[in-house]
Order: sequence, then structure tokens, then C-alpha cells
Amino acid sequence: MARDLIILAYSGGLDTSCILKWLLQRNYDVVCYMADIGQNEDFEKACQKAKLIGAKDVIVEDLRKEFVTNYMLPAIQMGLVYESRYYLGTSLARPCISVSIVNAAKRLGAKYISHGATGKGNDQVRFELSVYSLWPEGKVIAPWRLPEFFNRFQGRSDLIEYAKKENIPVAATPKAPWSTDENIMHISYESGVLEDPSAIPPTGIYKMTRDLQQAEQYPSVIDITFEKGLPVSAQIPSGQEKALIITDPLVLVETLNKLGGQHGVGRIDIVENRFLGLKSRGLYETPAGTILHVAHLDLEAYALDKEVLRIKKYLQDKMSDFVYNGFWFSPEAFYTRKCLEISQESVSGTVTVQIFQGNVSILARKSETSLYNKDLVSMDIAGGFSPEDSTGFININAVRLKEYARFTSAAK
Amino acid sequence: MARDLIILAYSGGLDTSCILKWLLQRNYDVVCYMADIGQNEDFEKACQKAKLIGAKDVIVEDLRKEFVTNYMLPAIQMGLVYESRYYLGTSLARPCISVSIVNAAKRLGAKYISHGATGKGNDQVRFELSVYSLWPEGKVIAPWRLPEFFNRFQGRSDLIEYAKKENIPVAATPKAPWSTDENIMHISYESGVLEDPSAIPPTGIYKMTRDLQQAEQYPSVIDITFEKGLPVSAQIPSGQEKALIITDPLVLVETLNKLGGQHGVGRIDIVENRFLGLKSRGLYETPAGTILHVAHLDLEAYALDKEVLRIKKYLQDKMSDFVYNGFWFSPEAFYTRKCLEISQESVSGTVTVQIFQGNVSILARKSETSLYNKDLVSMDIAGGFSPEDSTGFININAVRLKEYARFTSAAK
Amino acid sequence: MARDLIILAYSGGLDTSCILKWLLQRNYDVVCYMADIGQNEDFEKACQKAKLIGAKDVIVEDLRKEFVTNYMLPAIQMGLVYESRYYLGTSLARPCISVSIVNAAKRLGAKYISHGATGKGNDQVRFELSVYSLWPEGKVIAPWRLPEFFNRFQGRSDLIEYAKKENIPVAATPKAPWSTDENIMHISYESGVLEDPSAIPPTGIYKMTRDLQQAEQYPSVIDITFEKGLPVSAQIPSGQEKALIITDPLVLVETLNKLGGQHGVGRIDIVENRFLGLKSRGLYETPAGTILHVAHLDLEAYALDKEVLRIKKYLQDKMSDFVYNGFWFSPEAFYTRKCLEISQESVSGTVTVQIFQGNVSILARKSETSLYNKDLVSMDIAGGFSPEDSTGFININAVRLKEYARFTSAAK
Amino acid sequence: MARDLIILAYSGGLDTSCILKWLLQRNYDVVCYMADIGQNEDFEKACQKAKLIGAKDVIVEDLRKEFVTNYMLPAIQMGLVYESRYYLGTSLARPCISVSIVNAAKRLGAKYISHGATGKGNDQVRFELSVYSLWPEGKVIAPWRLPEFFNRFQGRSDLIEYAKKENIPVAATPKAPWSTDENIMHISYESGVLEDPSAIPPTGIYKMTRDLQQAEQYPSVIDITFEKGLPVSAQIPSGQEKALIITDPLVLVETLNKLGGQHGVGRIDIVENRFLGLKSRGLYETPAGTILHVAHLDLEAYALDKEVLRIKKYLQDKMSDFVYNGFWFSPEAFYTRKCLEISQESVSGTVTVQIFQGNVSILARKSETSLYNKDLVSMDIAGGFSPEDSTGFININAVRLKEYARFTSAAK
Repeated sequence: MARDLIILAYSGGLDTSCILKWLLQRNYDVVCYMADIGQNEDFEKACQKAKLIGAKDVIVEDLRKEFVTNYMLPAIQMGLVYESRYYLGTSLARPCISVSIVNAAKRLGAKYISHGATGKGNDQVRFELSVYSLWPEGKVIAPWRLPEFFNRFQGRSDLIEYAKKENIPVAATPKAPWSTDENIMHISYESGVLEDPSAIPPTGIYKMTRDLQQAEQYPSVIDITFEKGLPVSAQIPSGQEKALIITDPLVLVETLNKLGGQHGVGRIDIVENRFLGLKSRGLYETPAGTILHVAHLDLEAYALDKEVLRIKKYLQDKMSDFVYNGFWFSPEAFYTRKCLEISQESVSGTVTVQIFQGNVSILARKSETSLYNKDLVSMDIAGGFSPEDSTGFININAVRLKEYARFTSAAK
Repeated sequence: MARDLIILAYSGGLDTSCILKWLLQRNYDVVCYMADIGQNEDFEKACQKAKLIGAKDVIVEDLRKEFVTNYMLPAIQMGLVYESRYYLGTSLARPCISVSIVNAAKRLGAKYISHGATGKGNDQVRFELSVYSLWPEGKVIAPWRLPEFFNRFQGRSDLIEYAKKENIPVAATPKAPWSTDENIMHISYESGVLEDPSAIPPTGIYKMTRDLQQAEQYPSVIDITFEKGLPVSAQIPSGQEKALIITDPLVLVETLNKLGGQHGVGRIDIVENRFLGLKSRGLYETPAGTILHVAHLDLEAYALDKEVLRIKKYLQDKMSDFVYNGFWFSPEAFYTRKCLEISQESVSGTVTVQIFQGNVSILARKSETSLYNKDLVSMDIAGGFSPEDSTGFININAVRLKEYARFTSAAK
Repeated sequence: MARDLIILAYSGGLDTSCILKWLLQRNYDVVCYMADIGQNEDFEKACQKAKLIGAKDVIVEDLRKEFVTNYMLPAIQMGLVYESRYYLGTSLARPCISVSIVNAAKRLGAKYISHGATGKGNDQVRFELSVYSLWPEGKVIAPWRLPEFFNRFQGRSDLIEYAKKENIPVAATPKAPWSTDENIMHISYESGVLEDPSAIPPTGIYKMTRDLQQAEQYPSVIDITFEKGLPVSAQIPSGQEKALIITDPLVLVETLNKLGGQHGVGRIDIVENRFLGLKSRGLYETPAGTILHVAHLDLEAYALDKEVLRIKKYLQDKMSDFVYNGFWFSPEAFYTRKCLEISQESVSGTVTVQIFQGNVSILARKSETSLYNKDLVSMDIAGGFSPEDSTGFININAVRLKEYARFTSAAK
Repeated sequence: MARDLIILAYSGGLDTSCILKWLLQRNYDVVCYMADIGQNEDFEKACQKAKLIGAKDVIVEDLRKEFVTNYMLPAIQMGLVYESRYYLGTSLARPCISVSIVNAAKRLGAKYISHGATGKGNDQVRFELSVYSLWPEGKVIAPWRLPEFFNRFQGRSDLIEYAKKENIPVAATPKAPWSTDENIMHISYESGVLEDPSAIPPTGIYKMTRDLQQAEQYPSVIDITFEKGLPVSAQIPSGQEKALIITDPLVLVETLNKLGGQHGVGRIDIVENRFLGLKSRGLYETPAGTILHVAHLDLEAYALDKEVLRIKKYLQDKMSDFVYNGFWFSPEAFYTRKCLEISQESVSGTVTVQIFQGNVSILARKSETSLYNKDLVSMDIAGGFSPEDSTGFININAVRLKEYARFTSAAK
């Protein structure tokens, strides 16, 4: 009788290697799936390791362009920021990977998808809600939530012991005392020594960005162009003759990551609220994402009508929660995303930013579609504006306030 | 017969000096009122000038402590940010000054208050709505909105000509090609050459903060302590033996302004939406305010419950609009402020920030009142958390998504 | 020299007849404009009166279908209700009329539009904001806000005296001691004896709906069908053999008005907040509108995803304010309307309502596009639902609550 | 060795009787807990039944006053309505009962609380989240979510068979083909034949309210008085000499229930979204609650400032979700409730309502604390209002619209 097939989201690390073996020992066929979303990984080596352990096959897919085009840049267009600070680098990657792994599962006739995400985290939720949305009849095996697994492997040492026993190669270098998640948009750091929010993180953690003391000593000026809220090109460095104009989304992000990294741009250290109700401390570095978000925010405020901006802000805050919580493929996210896209129809133009010493500073912006009217606002030009009208405007706004003042003073 | 008394909000500059004279020529008695809210001003000289022109009296009041204690620090407690970027330095000063000028008007039996704010701006609104709230039977004379005034003085040269004719001293130094508003919280720059949002501002504008190239070459680390959301002390530099502990609100802000200024902290260049419906470009520098806001945001996310944080965020965005638009003394602002204050009851603790090269970086935070639970979130400790529960949690959240997925695929 | 042309929104009543004369006396050419939006009016007689007074021409346009199709039914689709109770019958008519009057003004080369709305009301705002949006270079003459007019005509008796002097026919029947606004969607009653909110309105006010004591003694059952949130047909009475199926929007509204009126459906007596900051008491009767809104609300809750419903609700409340305040043609209303329309894509189906004795009761609803799943919710069928999952769902939701409980009890 | 003690929320019905026996068979001591929250129940008989089955003890507590005072009337004060229609009668009862049952559990040294709520419903969530909030170290046994229970009892017939076998008395009367939940605030009906939303419910379902055809033929007029948003008295019938004035909260609700019931007030038939993501059809009758809510809504709009009303509305919608979802004792509900209570400080006064034929009609309202100003709004009195000011107000509001109009027409 044919064995049930599992597609395992495989990283090459200790956890998913042990999971792979453990699943095989439970009489499943296992195909390992690896997504290249820009993390620093030796995919070749990981493939060999998976096959050595017994994977029926290993699929490696380059999702970097897909991730940048359909997740990261739309997130900038929508202005997604979780709890005012986090640009959602990990949250955005999960649905992207889920699409591909579900496609693989359907293609190969798998019955299960499995992953190594832990039981307290957000990623299990994001991953599984995406999978169930895309494949309602699919099933997920999450070993870290199965008592027979988590009772057996109560710590890293249990995994190492198992690996040794089962001839699974274990990396010689000791694990960093924190965990990371890496993709082309960001690297996150959490757990371990970072779990104490009152402890200053050790130096040397960050990998995409330089410390300010090592950052470049000169500013870089970049012209970033948006169309309908989406970044479409960057001129780097801006304003120079032999300037580089980048329009490929992937190259755009890679270039801004490199430049932002040199200038130490995009680090944060926050405590955030997980979907499960836990508070968690995380460090993030998001160089290109930070530059693009700051530029987009500026252009949007410049181009959009005041009241549209406020409604859009409400939707943006809702969407940020949806994405963080794993609801990228939910009805509410589809709906909110459509509304947010419509809001961006006039957010086209170019923002000049200076990046220097960790700062992304707006220098100037221009747009053919902005409602800004220099003559109207000018102190030196009437511009069709009648100052007497302001008197009526103020007086009418004061009607309600005067009533309230009279009322409250009468009440005393 | 006694002449009607006007209290004129006087700055010592060309505009309000000409207004003073113009009002006197209309047969009013005029008492000039000057508020010291931390601006760089020679009050003595301005007094003499007002008296020379013919003011019946000049009142100068030091409102710095009042402004810091009852406006600036509560704004940090409430997390007020206009359109995601502007910390409302000018908007907060207007109601503070209005209280004092209304008190003066009542004390002196004045019939009118007058000011030099222009007809396109926000300040006329903030000023007058505050005055009418505090003194519903009061009247405001705004010469820049009176045709007999603005038709006569169509530009700066008309004012200068009038001043010369009426023996009003005119400053020898040419006016900067932009206008500024200054107080202990911030300096704003707008108008003139800044009216073109696509033009990079000239260097040398900023006064409170150094350019990054001139900023200090070492980081400063500060421990900022909050009680119920209000900054109550700062230890500067933090972690050292002979550290300075500041608890006086005014000294706290002055010290952070100085230190923040040395590190180039707190500049923004934005296009904002005025209450009147115009878009306007402004530059702001808010060194202490920026440091305090960044620290407060971090502590709040650390201490507050996730869902309380979301409601508080909604109220904060509303309150920011109320304050920007001049409704500090409105029923909605009184109400929202009460709600925001209640939200802060557990926002107590200390945040360690590093300021360096324009950046305010969070290093650590601690709080006796935070809901953060290290054991609960730890990857290494179960902490009473059952991983199996996450399965049910995810599955139930997926119920709705699966229904939607089945439904939409059936609809195809 | 040619005289400037004014298009006057003319009602045939005392106010606009006097305004017509007054404008003519100021040397304008005046064309009167009358929109038939379903009010009970003798247009022929009003035309003759206008011409008698001296109107250059009178335009009467039947806007009923336009009003129903492009304003009233979309308002039902969007779920617009002001301050939880008012269906915006007057607010919706203003932009509709404005389009036609502006078109007439442009066609005839008029320079001004004039109207008889008073200075304290909402309608002046709605009318003029619509006109300025559609015709930014146009100008409005609002006599009731011009001192030369309102000082001369300080009460109704001044108008009557003027009318008699200028040979303007005055209705023999005394004016009702309140004012009304009537169209095919509703009739409103306010002012006069209604201004005291503590006074029970006199009987006999209402015109579209019967008093409950006179209402029909039998219930009527109607099937109302919606497509994408828009009412598209009604089967009246429903469930019978020779049932009447109505699909013409105008006939649909007329029929439901008649039937609703017979059953005494759709009256409210409220105090509302005007845009200008005044509170005002109004009585409204909206028979068809009430039936359609109640049915739509039911279908929407049935069809829409839970979270989409909440976002839609936020947008609906915003849009209701926009429409009430006169911002139908604003960027925020265009934007919000698009978002609301998108939300309605799956709101298709049929609702069975019973109207009887003032009540609109939902009896049943069906929809091919609802997310309702009878098997899933059934107490008798598992429907793919695992009850154990609920345990995990509850436990994870309790994590945050337990932390808070422990924390607050520890704090005591 | 002592056996672990369970407090079982006991209803006397088949389900909880079988659960009682089943728990006893599992070697627990079981004390049954019955809360009288106004449901029509023979508590004496249920006690005997429980003891017959083997309960160690039965506790019956009269929570009616507690429920009315601390849950139902505050809900009216807060304006809680779920998804625009449901007054939350069941949702409010759950936390009330939970407090008492947790107190009993603590008093008696119980280790567990158990209940008969099913796995697809809201009540399990409300009940358990309340229990865990009040007693974080407590444990809940929910048999309907335990496979050993629900696999054994797959339908009602399995329960009956078990009951017969175990000598548990079974009611002779057949169960209604739907389930109900009853308390002093409302009765809900769902499941069974009601699960088909397109089926018109059978007649004769409702118990608290008469069908309209049987309703009283005369209207009743009631004066309801609120203090700070809370109903404090009713004068019934209002306006008569020998009027009855009721101030006791419990009597107030009972009297309005009776009167409302006679007039057929307060029925709805809706499809709602459960917290678990299912859609469910429910019928509710809430006579007193409907009368009080309608009156409160009217007084609130009359008394509150326009902008405060809008913020309050946002909070009210959030709180309604919190309460429906079972989060009465959550940090967000504590916080939001405080904010809502503060909003009601000026909501004091009397509303005259007419109840007749299912309708609750507002006739009049008065309040010493309303911001309504009759002179200000009067068409016949200037009241300090300058009509010219409206011109400026409109023109300034049009600035943004004209810009947008020019911009969009230029874009074409």
C-alpha cells in the first residue's frame, strides 16, 4: 500500500532535520520543500542533507521575485506597519511560501503539509491559516504541537542526541543564543538572551546593517519613484550624471538593502503583541523596507486628500493586524487590500531621500497627481482665497464650543 | 468716554507692531501681551517697542513651565502625532497662550483680543477656538482677515512703509525667506522658499539641532522614567556613577533639547493637511519631544494589553486631529483626553534610549506594571502554555477561512 | 449691456418668490429652476407664478428616476444612516438637484446660482458644496445670509408685506406651524412648534404614512431581491399566485411607499446634530426607505463575512456623515463609496419581510452568495467541525486574560 | 482519599443531568449550581432531580437583581448592540453567572467547573473566558468537547437511552424543535427547524411577547428617566394622575417586560456571526431591553456633544463585540467600559415613549444636561447666530473640494 505523502517545509537546520527523520519513522513519504526568499542559506548542502536523512525528494524554489513583487512592495503601497513600528518582514513571507508549498502538495498528491514552527509563535498560525485558505481539504502536521513529539524533545540537547543517534549531521558551530528569521526584506532576532526586555542586546547581532560607528561617512541621496503607491524605480545616487536607474523590483530591493545597510538604516528593538496573546521582544533590521516606507509615507501625505488619508489610515491599521495575524488570504484582507489599492490611485511621483547614519531623511518630493497647490497656500499670493471666509469658518466651528462652555459654566 | 480695551498678542515683530499702531489709530486702548514659551526673544526690547508705539501696557508672562507640564508632556502621554509624523509643537502652544491671554482680558476688563495670525493658517483657528471656549462672550479682532487691513497691507513692503511713516522701529537685518514659530518644544519653518515641496531646503535653517555632519561623535544613553504615561525623570547619561537625575519637567525638556540637539535628533520635512483644507509644507525640529515620544511608544507597547493598545491608538489619532485643528478645549478633547489618561494607568517604567547621529534607539525597557511574562513567551520554558491548544486556536480561526475558500472556489 | 444671469432654485413658495423679485430688482436676469423629486407640488402653477413675478424662464425637470437610481438606492446599498436613525432623505436629494441646476447654469451661461435655504441649516451647505464641487468657478447667492436681505426680511410678516406690495401671489391657506421637505424618499418636519424637543408633536403632521390606529389590519408580506446590495425587485404581495413583480426602481419605491404608508411604516422623531454644530429636532417618515434598509441590513449580515462586515460598518458610518454634511461629491465620498460598493459584491439574494402596524419584520432570507453553512452550524451535524478545537481556541484566548488577572491580583 | 470536587452549572434538563451522572461515574464529587436569572424554571424540582442523580449538593442563587443592575442596565447605558441588532441578552448573563459559580467553587474548594455548553457555540467561550479571568488557576471540564463524551452521545436519543438506563428522569413532553435560552432580559431561539434561514419560523415560538394580532389595542405611554445613562425610573402609564413610579431596577425591568410583551415589542429574527466564525440564525425577544435601548439612544443623541457621540459610538461597537465574544472581564472591556461610562455623565433626563403594536416610538424628551439650545436653532430667533458666518464656513469647506474638482477635471 502506498504511503501517505507529506510535504515538509524544510530549512536544513536541526529542528526540521529531526522532524524529517521522525516523520519518516512514522511511515510517511516526505518531500522536503525549501523556498529561497533571500535568506543566506546553502541550499545545495541542505538538499544533500535532506536526501541523506531519507527525503523522497527536495524541492527548492526561488521565490524572491514573487515575494518582492506580490508581498513586500504591496505592503509598502498599503503602508503596513504593525503596532506603529514593525514592517512585517516575516509575516509577509509566510503566505508567499504557503502558496508554493500548497501548489507542490497539490501537484504531488500529498495529503499533509508539515513544518517546524513552534507552538507559541505567530508563524504556525500564519503558515496554517494560509495553507487552509488555499487548500481547505489539506491537513497540517505540526510536530512541535504533538505531545508525542514535544514530550520527547524537550530541549535542544534532546534533538542533538536524536540527530547523532540517527546519523543526522549536526552543525559544528554552536547555535547563536537567539533565533533569527531571514529573508530579502528583513532579518528578525528573538528568543534566548533577547527574551529579557530590560537587557541591552549584545553587539554584533545584526547582519544586514552596519553599526552606526561603522556606517559610511557620507550621505547618499536617492530618488524613489512610485506609481499608484508602488515603488517602480530608484535613481541611485540621485542627481548625478552617471546615475543608476533601477526598475527591476528585485534589484531595487537588493540595491536599497545594500545601500541602507552601509548607512545603518532600519533597525528596531521592540516588544510586540503576538496573535496568541503573548508579548514578545524582537529585533528587526529592514533596510530597503524602511527607506521605501518612509518615502511612501511622505508621498502619500503629499498626494492624497486629507479625509481620504484618514480613512486609508484606518484600513491600513486593520490590514497590518490581518497580515501580522496570518490572515493574508482572508476575506477581510482581500477586501481591505482592494480598498487600499484604490486609495493609492493618485499616489504617483518621486521622493528624494537622503540616507545617512541610520537616518532616512526626506529632502523633497514631486508629483503630478498631488492636490498640493502652491499658490493656494502661499503667504504671498491670495490664490483665490478670501481671508474673510476664515472668520465665518472659525465662528461656526466655535458655535458648538461656546454652547458647551456656557453649559459647563452654568453647571458649576 | 472710555475707549474699548484690546489685548493684543504681541510678538515684537513687524506685523504685530503695525497691527498695534493700526488698532491705536482706530481709537482702541491696547495692552500688549507676550507669552514666554521658550522662544528666543528679547522681551525687554519688545516691551519698549510696544510702549514706544503706544501700548497702554505690556504684559510678559513666563508660561514655559505651564506649557511643558500641562501641554507638552500630556501630549507625549497621549502619544499625539499628527498625520503620523508631526508632534504638534505649535498646536499645543496655542491653547496654553490662550488661557493666559483670556485671563488677562478678563482681569483688565478688555472687550477684544487681537492677534497677527494670517487668514490661511491654522493658528488663527487654534487661537480663536480656544479663546471662544474659554470666554464665549469675548470677541476677536483678526486684522489679517479684515479687508480694510489686508487690502491696505498687501505685502511686507506696505508694512515697512507704514512702519517707517509711523515711526515704528524696523529690524535692520533682513527677514529670513521663510517664517518660523518657536517654543521650548520645537521650531517650525514654513512659507517662502519652503513653499515648493520639490525644492530641497537651504542648509542652515535649523536652530535647535545640529546637522548630522556636525553632530557629536559619541552616543549618549539616557534612562527615561514614566509614571502613568507621563515622563517624570531622566538619568543622563545613564548607567554612569555621577549620573545626573532630572525630575523638574522644565529642566528635563531643556536638557533633552540640548542633548538631542547636539546629536541632531528630531528633524522632519513634511507636507501636512491644514484644517482649512490647504496642503502646506513644513520643517520641524523637536529634539526633546522626539526622544520622549519614541521612549513612550516603546514603554506603552511593552506595558499595555494588546487590545487596549488598539483602542488607545484610535483615540490617540482622533485627539491628534482635535489638537491640530484647535479643539483643545472642546467637549470631544476633554472626553478623549480623559479616556487616554485612563489608558496610561499601567504605563510606568524606565526606557533606556541611545541618541546618536539623529537616531533615538531603544536599548532596553523595564516596568513593574507590564503584562510581559518572560516565562510565558520563552522558547525554553513551557510556562503553563500547552502547545496543543494552539492547534485548536488555529483550526477554529481557519473555520471561517475554509468556508470562504470553499465558497469562492465553488463560485468560479 | 447684458445682465448677469442667475439660476434660482425655485419652490413656488413665499420665500423663493420674494427672493426672485428681490434679485430681479437688483438687475439680474433670473431663470427659475424646479426639480421634481417626487414632492407633492403643482409645478404648472408655480411656473406661472414665477413668470408672473418676472422670471426670464422656468425650467422644470423630473429627477425622480435619477434620484431613486443614483442616490436613494445606492444609499440603501451603502447602508447609510445618520446618527443611528436618520436615512438621509433630504441629504441625498441635494446633490441630485445640484447636478441638474449646475448643468442648467452651464448650459445657459449663468454666472450665479441662488437658493432660499436659510443660514442655520444643513441644506445651504449641501447645496453649495455640491455646486462648488461640480462647478468650481461658479458663484452662489444665498440671500438669507446677506445682511441687506435678512435685515430687511426679519420674519414671515415682512415677506408677506413685500409680496403684497410687489404683487406676488400669497397662498390663502395659512402656513403649517413647522417646515417640511418632501421628496419621493421621505418627508421631514422641523422648526416651529417642533423646536421644543419636550413637546409631543401635534397629531395629523404626517402625510406619507397612516397613524397606527388607521393602519391596515392585515400584514403584507414582500419578497425583496438585491443584487450586489442594490434592491432590484420586489414581489408584492409575496408568496401568492398572482403576485406583482416590480423591477422598475421608481415603481418599486412608489409601491413600497404606498404599502409602507398604509401600514404606518417608517416614522421617527429625533434630535440630530447639524453640520454647523447646532442640535435640531426633526420628524421623518420614510416608508419605502425603511423597508429597504431593514431588508438590506438583514441580507448583508447573512451574506457578508464577519470581519468584512465590521470594516464595511466603519466605512458606512463615515459615509453617512459625509452625505449628511454635504460632501457627496468630495474625494472622501467618492473613495468611500467605491469601497462600500466592493463590499456588496456578494450581497445578493431575497429577503422576505412582513410589514404590519408600523413594523418591518424579517421572516426569512435566502442567498446563493451567503457564507452561511447550515451543516457547519447545525447542532445535529458535525459538519467537519471538531469540538476539541474549541478547547484550544478558548484556552489560547484565555492566555492573555489569565495573565491580566494574575497581574491585577498581584498588584492589589 | 478525597475525590476532586466539580461545580456543575446545572439546568435540570437532559444534557446537564446526563453530564452530572457521567461525572459522578468518573469518580468526582459534584455540586450542582443553578442561577436564577429570571428564566421560567422549577428550581425545586431540578434540585430534587440533581440530588436523586447523586449530586453532593445543589446551590440555587437568585441573581436577577445582580444581573439587572450590573449587566443589563449598564449594557443599556453603554448602548451595546451586536451587529446592529442583537441586544446581547445571553452574552450578558454568562459573566454574571460565572462570578457566582466561581465564588462557589472557591468557597467549596472545588478543582473544576463543568458546564453543558456545546462545542460550536458562543456560550462555552463566554463562560470559560469569564471563569479563567476570575479564577486563572481554575479548570473547566466541558464534556461536549471531550471525545469520550461526544462520541458516546452522538444525538439526543443516546442521551435519553443513557438517562433511562441510569434512572435519570426524562421529561414526558417532547422537546421543542429548537433550543432556547431564557433570562429576565430576553429569550433566544435557535437551532433545529430555525437553522434554515430561508424558512419562516413556526408561529407560537415566542413566550415573552404577544403576536401583533393579539397585542393590546391601545398605546401605552411611559416616561423613562436616566441618570448618567442608566435607567433609574419609569412612570407608567405616564402623564396620568395615579401613575405608577418605579425605581427598583428589577421591578422596572419586570414591569417593562410585561407591558412591552402585551404590546408585542422587541422581537428580531437575525443571522449573526458567532465568535468561532460560524454564522447562526437566532430569534430573540427583549421587551424591556428594547424599550430602554430605544429611549436611551434618543436621550443620548439629545444630550451629548456631536463629536463625543461619534467617539462613544466607536467604543460602543467595540464593547459590543467584546461582550458578545465573552470578554466581559478582559482588560479591553474594563477599559472601554470606563470610557463609555465617562461619556454618559451628561446623559440625564426623561424620555417619553409610546409602546404600541410592536413599536417603541419616541414622543418627547427633556434633559437639564442637554446641549440642545432652542433659541440657537430656532428659525425665528437669531440666537446669537450670524448667518454671514455660514458663508465663510461653506467657502472654506469648499476650498478642498474645488481643488479636487479642478484637479480631477484637469486630469481628464
